Amino acid sequence: MHILIIGAAGMVGRKLAQKLAADGALDGKTIEAMTQVDVVAPAAPAGFTGKVEALTADLSTAGEAEKLVAKRPDVIFHLAAIVSGEAELDFDRGYRINLDGTRYLFDAIRIAHGEDGYTPRVVFTSSIAVFGAPLPYPIPDEFHTTPLTSYGTQKAICELLLSDYSRRGFFEGIGIRLPTICIRPGLPNKAASGFFSNILREPLVGKEAILPVSDGVRHWHTSPRSAVGFLIHGATIDTALVGPRRNLSMPGLSATVGEQIEALRRVAGDKAVALIRREPDEMIMKMCAGWAPGFEAKRATELGFTAEKSFDEIIRAHIDDELGGKL
Amino acid sequence: MHILIIGAAGMVGRKLAQKLAADGALDGKTIEAMTQVDVVAPAAPAGFTGKVEALTADLSTAGEAEKLVAKRPDVIFHLAAIVSGEAELDFDRGYRINLDGTRYLFDAIRIAHGEDGYTPRVVFTSSIAVFGAPLPYPIPDEFHTTPLTSYGTQKAICELLLSDYSRRGFFEGIGIRLPTICIRPGLPNKAASGFFSNILREPLVGKEAILPVSDGVRHWHTSPRSAVGFLIHGATIDTALVGPRRNLSMPGLSATVGEQIEALRRVAGDKAVALIRREPDEMIMKMCAGWAPGFEAKRATELGFTAEKSFDEIIRAHIDDELGGKL
Repeated sequence: MHILIIGAAGMVGRKLAQKLAADGALDGKTIEAMTQVDVVAPAAPAGFTGKVEALTADLSTAGEAEKLVAKRPDVIFHLAAIVSGEAELDFDRGYRINLDGTRYLFDAIRIAHGEDGYTPRVVFTSSIAVFGAPLPYPIPDEFHTTPLTSYGTQKAICELLLSDYSRRGFFEGIGIRLPTICIRPGLPNKAASGFFSNILREPLVGKEAILPVSDGVRHWHTSPRSAVGFLIHGATIDTALVGPRRNLSMPGLSATVGEQIEALRRVAGDKAVALIRREPDEMIMKMCAGWAPGFEAKRATELGFTAEKSFDEIIRAHIDDELGGKL
Repeated sequence: MHILIIGAAGMVGRKLAQKLAADGALDGKTIEAMTQVDVVAPAAPAGFTGKVEALTADLSTAGEAEKLVAKRPDVIFHLAAIVSGEAELDFDRGYRINLDGTRYLFDAIRIAHGEDGYTPRVVFTSSIAVFGAPLPYPIPDEFHTTPLTSYGTQKAICELLLSDYSRRGFFEGIGIRLPTICIRPGLPNKAASGFFSNILREPLVGKEAILPVSDGVRHWHTSPRSAVGFLIHGATIDTALVGPRRNLSMPGLSATVGEQIEALRRVAGDKAVALIRREPDEMIMKMCAGWAPGFEAKRATELGFTAEKSFDEIIRAHIDDELGGKL
């Protein structure tokens, strides 16, 4: 089996490649080759015995998608996108990369399908940003997508294309609406939602973190480990069970900031919690009010997608995966 | 005021131009000029004293949208599209005309906005085809758009673009999800849904019509007159009241075929009803099962969009508008 990961240098892309390398197989079939693509060179996953190819390519450049499809990968994970903030600041770049790039990929597959019947599995990472306030809690599977960012708009459009191209039989698409990833490893970043991870990741290693919102703010989370699990399950699930509605809101954990903090206290003690410094930020609080508080995720749950059931679990997953299991 | 109608040679486009010509004004402002565009030359509306320009142009050809926008029309009605059946048969043509054509238009406006702050009203005709079975009855305003045709997909994508471009302030967009137009004037056509109109229009002039489905089939209708009313109301409504969710399911009339027939009996008698010949068609019956049975249309109703309340009214509107008021 040949797997193509587009957006392989990103946090989720790297973890996905690493997990596939560790498993060595997908859906019971040996992974003979993995092609990793990103705008910066992706690092090869450790311990993989198959063939690895790391390519630097921009999917939104005409002709690039055709080259990737020419090798007829069996499974394509499409994770490449510029993030919400950047897509909002640079309108043209957002539409070019997040929409046109995806359409180039889908059309390259469609044309290959016309040539020789090629019908790969395509796992696309969408986002809860396809939803826009006002939002109910929990958000049902049948709630409409009315994004309030260009990023969310681009993801919602790609979801529609994914469903239509799948319905036409050009490929077998699955759209995975990822919750906010928590705890995001690495350094604190400037994303407005970064604090959800910062207030746990930093105190776990004895560092201070800033909390810009009140304890009552509720949001929808999943660990990087679960996110990778969603993608792999999406690559192997029987699409006949999914039917024509190919975009699924993933399960996750709805929690308030206060609940996050209490989980941190249970796992790492009062000393860790004391490292959270409250610096209310009006702008971030206002943005938060429009974010998804939580989903029913009935269909995805019935289809076998699973996530953490408590923030304690999410914190322990981080300690295992990022801190070598030790506090 | 300068009005641009793209898709002006179609049934609704012609009726819209005629209504605007008869009114002579929109939102209390005199219409000084009307530009009508279509792939075939649109006929100038009768009795209009302002300047009329009829252009033959294909919006999906690069550069055409810029020419139309160069004149800075105050209101743009965008009705141009290829129909559902054709978009399904010709994948490339459907995406080129229904999606790329619309995006060219939106981007031409965006660029003009960047040049001189141009911010026209854009009224876009969407469709209930953005919804796909299984559908509840009535369909709430917040139901998700999961189209089961490429046409519906293209309309749903254009809706998302319309909202995002409006949110960004490039134009003031309103998306009008039209019900099935009934009674459609003209000759019986081969559209699978044509029978909803045929079984009324033909018997009203003493001709036979074929009914391919059972009396229990429920669908969502509005007259051509109401459809034009929706577009004009969409062109004048205060968008601050609409908010960021710019695409509205229009009010209409949910009726079964049996209810249509009883209305025909009340208006035109048993003799007219006797002209309906039942020829069940398995394929059409199957397609019908996936069509929208009816909508709540709460938001649109609150925003002042109005439609007929009975099929008797719809039939009488047809007699008034198409048969000179006489049976």
